[in-house]
Amino acid sequence: MNDMKLEKQIRFIVEIDKLKQVYRKTKILDRTRYENDAEHSWHLAMMAIILAEYANDRSVDIYKVLKLLLIHDLVEIDAGDTYAYDSTGQSSKKEREIKAAQRLFSLLPEDQGLELMSLWEEYDLHNTMEARFASALDKLQPLLFNHLNDGEIWKENNITSNMVIERNERIALGSESLWEYAQRIINTSIEQGILESSTEKRDQPDK
Amino acid sequence: MNDMKLEKQIRFIVEIDKLKQVYRKTKILDRTRYENDAEHSWHLAMMAIILAEYANDRSVDIYKVLKLLLIHDLVEIDAGDTYAYDSTGQSSKKEREIKAAQRLFSLLPEDQGLELMSLWEEYDLHNTMEARFASALDKLQPLLFNHLNDGEIWKENNITSNMVIERNERIALGSESLWEYAQRIINTSIEQGILESSTEKRDQPDK
Repeated sequence: MNDMKLEKQIRFIVEIDKLKQVYRKTKILDRTRYENDAEHSWHLAMMAIILAEYANDRSVDIYKVLKLLLIHDLVEIDAGDTYAYDSTGQSSKKEREIKAAQRLFSLLPEDQGLELMSLWEEYDLHNTMEARFASALDKLQPLLFNHLNDGEIWKENNITSNMVIERNERIALGSESLWEYAQRIINTSIEQGILESSTEKRDQPDK
Repeated sequence: MNDMKLEKQIRFIVEIDKLKQVYRKTKILDRTRYENDAEHSWHLAMMAIILAEYANDRSVDIYKVLKLLLIHDLVEIDAGDTYAYDSTGQSSKKEREIKAAQRLFSLLPEDQGLELMSLWEEYDLHNTMEARFASALDKLQPLLFNHLNDGEIWKENNITSNMVIERNERIALGSESLWEYAQRIINTSIEQGILESSTEKRDQPDK
């Protein structure tokens, strides 16, 4: 056993415990508190196992999808969670996240650091079927949660249906079936009055 | 798309959100709160990716290890977390967990329910190299955390070094290297006075 190597790996494992204290803008389903990034990553990995058959490309490598999902939010340890609909935050997000990836992955032995950096970049670029399916799940989960939590977070942040559609239509790049399902959730949410229809908003300019 | 099938899968995905409210007897590393099972499962999956090379059998299938770790605690949604050193709880644990597995996995389409039941049984029986490596990580993580948290939980529960050794020596079945490392953690903890040596305890019968 190479002690120095193991010490580096343990150092990284200890460092990423901080992901448990990065809170998202989505509540867990009993609505008692916000969801953190670590448990969110676990949930997405479970979704990948259960929903694998809906990936556009049935030959998708789910092992790789799991790795992408398990690491995709690690950069938020330094960069924080940027709310999907926060356009100011989104513009500086990339730079903050690259810095975070460099710091975190350099804790590891070089070969592993490079491997994780490459996986994180793959997720970020969405240029493989695995990254596109992983990203589809990362969009579907908060959409489903917001629906099940009666649109509380949508209402708080003045989110309308067009914003939700624009944000989530890329689900189709990873899974057309799941985008079809997501659209049903959006339509039901509008019907239930828990998501404001953008059409209604345009009809009431004085509001 | 088979709507009934997808609805079942989504039902399961929603149900397992409850794992985020099952709290363990280990604190996260900033010590502000106890760790929950969902984020714990994520952390173990990350450890499997980073520490794969230390598995006794280098041909271990890490994809399967990830699946075992992601699902291994799901039964605690119904059965609760049973503290490793709670012998009363441990004796009824098996029965409670089997019932929980039956209820949870039956929410899924039959083929998937059977697959997850089979994975959970494999983890529970420890009779494959994947299950033994997964279990080794599940033991190493709280040992490392208790050490880093200055033995707070050990002290609260009057845990001595022999109890820790007895509980954790099966790490060697999955990884002799990691058991060697774990023994170093135990010895350092005794030296630092954060884990009571069982020898000392025997020397002081009036205490």
